[in-house]
Amino acid sequence: MALVVQKYGGTSVANCNRIKRVAERVIARKEEGDDVVVVLSAMAGQTNYLIDLALEMQAHPDPRELDVLLSTGEQVTIALFSMAVKEMGQDARSFLGYQVPVETDSAHSKARIQNIPTSKLQEAISKGIIPVVAGFQGVSSTGDITTLGRGGSDTTAVAVAVSLDADVCEIYTDVDGVYTTDPNICPSARKIERISYEEMLEMASLGAKVLEIRSVEFAMRYGMPIHVRSSFTGTPGTMVVKEDELMEDVLVSSVTYSRDEARITIKKVPDRPGIAAMIFNPISDANIIVDMIIQNTRAGDLTDMTFTVPKGDFDQAMSIVEKTAEKIGAESVAGDKNIAKVSIIGVGMRNHAGIASRMFDILARHNVNILMISTSEIKVSCIIDEKYTELAVRALHEGFGLDKK
Amino acid sequence: MALVVQKYGGTSVANCNRIKRVAERVIARKEEGDDVVVVLSAMAGQTNYLIDLALEMQAHPDPRELDVLLSTGEQVTIALFSMAVKEMGQDARSFLGYQVPVETDSAHSKARIQNIPTSKLQEAISKGIIPVVAGFQGVSSTGDITTLGRGGSDTTAVAVAVSLDADVCEIYTDVDGVYTTDPNICPSARKIERISYEEMLEMASLGAKVLEIRSVEFAMRYGMPIHVRSSFTGTPGTMVVKEDELMEDVLVSSVTYSRDEARITIKKVPDRPGIAAMIFNPISDANIIVDMIIQNTRAGDLTDMTFTVPKGDFDQAMSIVEKTAEKIGAESVAGDKNIAKVSIIGVGMRNHAGIASRMFDILARHNVNILMISTSEIKVSCIIDEKYTELAVRALHEGFGLDKK
Repeated sequence: MALVVQKYGGTSVANCNRIKRVAERVIARKEEGDDVVVVLSAMAGQTNYLIDLALEMQAHPDPRELDVLLSTGEQVTIALFSMAVKEMGQDARSFLGYQVPVETDSAHSKARIQNIPTSKLQEAISKGIIPVVAGFQGVSSTGDITTLGRGGSDTTAVAVAVSLDADVCEIYTDVDGVYTTDPNICPSARKIERISYEEMLEMASLGAKVLEIRSVEFAMRYGMPIHVRSSFTGTPGTMVVKEDELMEDVLVSSVTYSRDEARITIKKVPDRPGIAAMIFNPISDANIIVDMIIQNTRAGDLTDMTFTVPKGDFDQAMSIVEKTAEKIGAESVAGDKNIAKVSIIGVGMRNHAGIASRMFDILARHNVNILMISTSEIKVSCIIDEKYTELAVRALHEGFGLDKK
Repeated sequence: MALVVQKYGGTSVANCNRIKRVAERVIARKEEGDDVVVVLSAMAGQTNYLIDLALEMQAHPDPRELDVLLSTGEQVTIALFSMAVKEMGQDARSFLGYQVPVETDSAHSKARIQNIPTSKLQEAISKGIIPVVAGFQGVSSTGDITTLGRGGSDTTAVAVAVSLDADVCEIYTDVDGVYTTDPNICPSARKIERISYEEMLEMASLGAKVLEIRSVEFAMRYGMPIHVRSSFTGTPGTMVVKEDELMEDVLVSSVTYSRDEARITIKKVPDRPGIAAMIFNPISDANIIVDMIIQNTRAGDLTDMTFTVPKGDFDQAMSIVEKTAEKIGAESVAGDKNIAKVSIIGVGMRNHAGIASRMFDILARHNVNILMISTSEIKVSCIIDEKYTELAVRALHEGFGLDKK
């Protein structure tokens, strides 16, 4: 008999019929002998609908009141779901963030979970009642409703699982697991059976949208296994586990891509101490996140500085950088929105040299020019011309043998 | 400078634009120098929409979970309203039932308010922040969300006003006050300037739908003046006050009617002690509320028993009564759904004889036959054939001079 925390996302509870299907699944699991705690998101589309209402009232909605508003989405699903379970003859009980309680700091719209006392959940479990917890929401020390930010229900689920010392946290979604790459552009993509937290984190930050990053960080810190699987099929999905629990030692476990970045180059920057700070401080003051940075040495005391920013922040970043360039006496500023980032990820890189050069070689053989490179211990990312995205992903997927079991 | 509690109903906050209009009103009042506490209902239609969702999940929705679900309606409006106030440059802060807290018993869907600690509301007021309280909802001693039943926001408003020792509780609605009778069937109906709690209570129980009964009882118990007025105009409405604060001594202040009852007669009942209990106990066991009861003595030891029940419970009551009639050896059971109740109400009746007979006389002069009569200290009700409803109301309204100032 295991203790399982199951989280169902917005598409799994998008309407009354789907909520009933999920209730059937949960009850079936409980009748197999497991204790189940359920964490739910709002019905698909509901959060966006509520945000639209808020924007009708206020150009920049008050963060405290926005959280009061948005938290109603999960409140509706947990109540309806509990009714469905009861109608099917099992007992369930809904828990709002403040009722668990899911204690957070008071950073509205991006609160962090600090503690989850479990006595009320455990009392319900011991009575055979299925606890149904509202994802995404918590309560601050002042009793105010907080929310955890987009995808926060994943984090709620993992945090509840950790607090209850559950055996596994199952995240149900509309795909049946984590894939070696995006099946939409690479038909030979395969479902991964087991992947490490570290790889999953890199995948999430490099463009794969299966799990919310904070939930993976949380699970990694406490060693909580996550099972990513489909709420529409019964097949096993992907287990996200500690690196030493991986079955086989693969060099590269996945290929990701992102078209969400843009590149800015400042040409002929006078190369003196403090120049980088002068360039990047105003950008970070505008809350724009810079990803890759490359500095080329030129002849004399001049250097070129190239970096990437999120595509949505490109125009603002360009106007900031143009002012800075004038102030520091750089020659010119160039921008390029038509780029993509392709990455290979794998914990096997730690122990094997030459993975990066093999990547460059594969891209070269397909005539894909590399514009920028960045590496970490377990990934290599290349910025390329956007039009080569699909080609590069397919070539790397095949080149590293990911199409073969 | 006064402390005013203002309650706005569902049609006043039916959409974003109306919420903004209400925010403008509240701010205008605050800028005149008054302290304002706002109590809001859910957007019109929202509660029914949520009930429909619940009924899709469960034939008889779990009361605890239904309260979790329904309370989201007010949660949405208080958040949106607070945003609107902030956008207009004043400060506001939403308060859910558990945040005030509005402490209730744990009778889900019909909870009663037990206590409202005011320190948080007063702290907000003292800082110049407009508290915006969710109507209809409270919290039980176990931390569960409760709701107060239909129209419960009126009760929230009065209870908050009493707890804060406010100067007045203003109930904003889509009519501009309490009328001498229904203007839809009697064009000469006039708005009443002042009316007593007792009369308002009788009106509410006799079919007028302006205020929820419990809110009037609450206000009466604590002497909190209620001002019923329109949220769409600026004109004064109707003050509901203590009897000794009425300006003039009118005999009859209003005429009401209801088509919501039906009549059942059991003929030739053996008249022996305990027979009434045998008839009415099974009906009350079925949670059917009996209003008027009349017993006619016949020749010998036989009696006729006539009583009224809500029209919606008529079929069930008939089948219960038919079984009882057989058991006690009554001759037959007859039912009639085509009846109406017309009533006159006025605290002046206490000190004047002959009001009832004047009512019977007016109805007789218009050839309206009286089927049943019931009286209290401040009202007289007659059951008549339903088709005479409008005629009877107009005749009584004119006959008691209510059409003249």
